[in-house]
Amino acid sequence: MSGPPVQRDKRRERGDRTRERVARRAAEVASVEGLVNVSLNRLAADLGVSKSGVAAAYGTKEELQLATVAAAREVFISHVVAPALAHPAGTPRLRALVDAWLEYVGSGVFPGGCFMAAVVPEFDTRPGAVRDALLEARREWIGLLTQEVSVAQRDGELAGLSPEDLAFEIDALLAACNLTRNLSDPTGGVERTRRILYARLGTGRVAP
Amino acid sequence: MSGPPVQRDKRRERGDRTRERVARRAAEVASVEGLVNVSLNRLAADLGVSKSGVAAAYGTKEELQLATVAAAREVFISHVVAPALAHPAGTPRLRALVDAWLEYVGSGVFPGGCFMAAVVPEFDTRPGAVRDALLEARREWIGLLTQEVSVAQRDGELAGLSPEDLAFEIDALLAACNLTRNLSDPTGGVERTRRILYARLGTGRVAP
Repeated sequence: MSGPPVQRDKRRERGDRTRERVARRAAEVASVEGLVNVSLNRLAADLGVSKSGVAAAYGTKEELQLATVAAAREVFISHVVAPALAHPAGTPRLRALVDAWLEYVGSGVFPGGCFMAAVVPEFDTRPGAVRDALLEARREWIGLLTQEVSVAQRDGELAGLSPEDLAFEIDALLAACNLTRNLSDPTGGVERTRRILYARLGTGRVAP
Repeated sequence: MSGPPVQRDKRRERGDRTRERVARRAAEVASVEGLVNVSLNRLAADLGVSKSGVAAAYGTKEELQLATVAAAREVFISHVVAPALAHPAGTPRLRALVDAWLEYVGSGVFPGGCFMAAVVPEFDTRPGAVRDALLEARREWIGLLTQEVSVAQRDGELAGLSPEDLAFEIDALLAACNLTRNLSDPTGGVERTRRILYARLGTGRVAP
């Protein structure tokens, strides 16, 4: 720590911006190539900064991975959760969550589609802080779906289903949609998933 | 090529056995750690053979990866598909496929659960021969599910559903089951998936 306070603040601000850019780019790369082998060289080249600059932004690979999960969570909240929260709780919000998720994946916010769908299967058998962070983000997401199903049921809809089971189904179908998008059928997978989920949520079929 | 024919045959036989053991072990390791970074050193140590012996068994990493996919497919057929084919086509066979799959994952035939559920998300964004082989195996599996739903519908069951959509749903739920098994809840995930799928297949709830 040296120099007058104003210079220190500017330096910190620049450091924070670099950290943000590195984590955001790491999330994009990880959606395609996975988070286990995320490479400082690659991130440095992509961002046009020095490798030491990237290394200085995050002390350890695990710190970078955790920051990447946090950055991806922010993107998910702003693209999927926040828009849906503008809709009334219950079935309308569930449908809005499905629509926003399909738009988020279909439009390629992350080049590999859904960050979580790409990275959770990679870490599900790797105990540690990164898996814990992914598990927490996943609990948050399934918890939101479960809560909205419960609200729908208080409104007399989606009767006879367990909220936890239906939340599990919605999440399962979205993950399969991501796989199909990447593997074989980008638009067909999205439309199939929308049709199935609209039927599950009792909101009728999409227009032909 | 040298030595009398009997020695050559024995050598080839030993070579084939090594190739089989390497591919089978690679499938076990890949179910936990992924197939991208499968390590010859690791396989050699696990099998108690020399690294050069493992390297000689498969000329390139891609050959090893393709042999690993083929070995995993064989395991899947013997544990999941073959037992279900003993049941009548249609709904009974669909239920048998679900039961056999849940047993295959619950009993840890592969330490990471389902090989395909682990490896397909890893390769879905990596074009090449390995992804093509995974896609082909996946098409075979979804094709089998689709066909059995069609038979069930000819028998007057599962009316009103698209066979392709229901096959997609079954596969999606099984993949989510694998994730939950590895991530947080080994037995709860299996029981939840069984309950949901029995309900989808109209075969009633499991006994409490």
